[in-house]
Amino acid sequence: MSRMTILTEAELRKIVTLDLDTVAGIENAFRSLATLPVAMPPILRLDMPEQRGEVDVKTAYVPGIDGFAIKISPGFFDNPKLGLPSVNGMMILLSARTGLIEALLLDNGYLTDIRTAAAGAVAARHLSRADSKVAAIFGAGMQARLQLEALRLVRPIEEARIWARDAAKAEATAAYLRDKLGILVRAEPDAAKAAAGADVIVTTTPSTEPLIKAGFVSVGQHITAMGSDAEHKNEIAPTILGMADLYVADYAKQTRRLGELHHAIEAAVFAADAEVTELGQIIAGEKPGRRSASDITIADLTGTGVQDTAIATLTRDRARAANAGTIFES
Amino acid sequence: MSRMTILTEAELRKIVTLDLDTVAGIENAFRSLATLPVAMPPILRLDMPEQRGEVDVKTAYVPGIDGFAIKISPGFFDNPKLGLPSVNGMMILLSARTGLIEALLLDNGYLTDIRTAAAGAVAARHLSRADSKVAAIFGAGMQARLQLEALRLVRPIEEARIWARDAAKAEATAAYLRDKLGILVRAEPDAAKAAAGADVIVTTTPSTEPLIKAGFVSVGQHITAMGSDAEHKNEIAPTILGMADLYVADYAKQTRRLGELHHAIEAAVFAADAEVTELGQIIAGEKPGRRSASDITIADLTGTGVQDTAIATLTRDRARAANAGTIFES
Repeated sequence: MSRMTILTEAELRKIVTLDLDTVAGIENAFRSLATLPVAMPPILRLDMPEQRGEVDVKTAYVPGIDGFAIKISPGFFDNPKLGLPSVNGMMILLSARTGLIEALLLDNGYLTDIRTAAAGAVAARHLSRADSKVAAIFGAGMQARLQLEALRLVRPIEEARIWARDAAKAEATAAYLRDKLGILVRAEPDAAKAAAGADVIVTTTPSTEPLIKAGFVSVGQHITAMGSDAEHKNEIAPTILGMADLYVADYAKQTRRLGELHHAIEAAVFAADAEVTELGQIIAGEKPGRRSASDITIADLTGTGVQDTAIATLTRDRARAANAGTIFES
Repeated sequence: MSRMTILTEAELRKIVTLDLDTVAGIENAFRSLATLPVAMPPILRLDMPEQRGEVDVKTAYVPGIDGFAIKISPGFFDNPKLGLPSVNGMMILLSARTGLIEALLLDNGYLTDIRTAAAGAVAARHLSRADSKVAAIFGAGMQARLQLEALRLVRPIEEARIWARDAAKAEATAAYLRDKLGILVRAEPDAAKAAAGADVIVTTTPSTEPLIKAGFVSVGQHITAMGSDAEHKNEIAPTILGMADLYVADYAKQTRRLGELHHAIEAAVFAADAEVTELGQIIAGEKPGRRSASDITIADLTGTGVQDTAIATLTRDRARAANAGTIFES
């Protein structure tokens, strides 16, 4: 008989927020990914084309973390017609010592949103200028909102521009963030103008054509591209990877296949076998991050199972401390 | 917000038993596997060698079944030292229409035991002689017990012999089955004698060396090998696959890689590209099963995700009918 804690989305939203402690947990996961023998098997993917449905299952074992998460992420793209969200899912936390199930995190994707946003904060902390004041956010969805909040945790952001294909959504997101953060946030319909003079640019879209063109980028900027999690997605013009002073992958094996790097390799801007710096190597002090205020830096975030394992164990610890959730024995 | 049913092992044991209705559900799953465009991605496997731990995640989508299961099967082989079972796990049932989670089946492996045993009944129904009276069971674990019970559902078994490497365990299993089934069941320490004259032989061990040698097999016998679920496992001498009148796979793609067939191909008894009959093709009437009372037939069962999807949807239906489980909203 095993004993597990079940946490609903409402309970999870109370105990896990986008804060510096969460950012530290994700930072630690990236350090482990780059420096320890992490086991992260290829994603299990099941497609149900008749329903425009798919499900991804991810997992990762990180030595030194006593639990590991299995994340189930269904995406059913006709759900909105039924009044249901496209993306759902849950995480299962198992003991890395016994394999027993410790917690069922019924998050409907919430923890993925948080761990993804936290990775943006980690990238900005190690790659953007410490005096970064102006942010440009591309996209107007949940990650657009969270990425600006994440930046504010690590950089003194005073102004933000929101660009999105749908101008009304950009306006709504800008209004939401202005209210929530109490800083200057405005929608900017011209992508070039949104990027001009921004200290940090974050792209959060599912775009299949580069949104950030070569001419948009200037010295001292940092760009985090976090929209590309599939071969066909592409947010940053490949030439920018060639002209940047530093390109950083969350997980090089994956960005070579899925990320912005993949397009730069195809465009012959990057050699397929070029050595690539990983975010965790910078965190661990094994490789330098930004070297000067004039560097152009790029972080290519495709999403990794170690982030899920990190957020799930952090969630379990906070649930224990808060005595949250329902205990089930089975 | 989604609404799911959580069922504990104790609740599952009440509503799902090894019965003819369960066998029919698994039979239907095999028919689908062989005749419909089933989607069954490769198993996701994570190894944690420091703990002698592993976890497998399986899934399958079967057109016409409105749900699909994701099964999480951890195996941590040092657990017995801690007083814990080696094998645990659960199944998650998702809607095949919306991807929403419908049920969490906290079965600790129970449903896998049942769907595996039911596959033995399906194989015996289509391949063994209808008048089969004597069974030989190799192994003394949970599947040894369940496979004899499964045979009794479909064949008039009156006598059984239990062989196991550990004679004491064979005695204990024989005593248990004698009590439970009220038929003649005895432990037989000589493997050749256990097999001699048996109408049905079922092997349920993790053996890596053939237990059933060529000389053990005689006309009219049916053999179900269900222990091999990994490359190194092997219960049946490869030459037996060559001399049999009919070899049947649960899933040819998988038995070519993991099953008894894999060893027969290595031993050059079978051509790697030989056409292989699948159990579902026989069920569907597309290919013949046993043709005469003197045929030697073999079923090679490696375990498939469609069985998990079938047992999980059957479980959900029975839970609804019995109003069993706890409803969770998240």
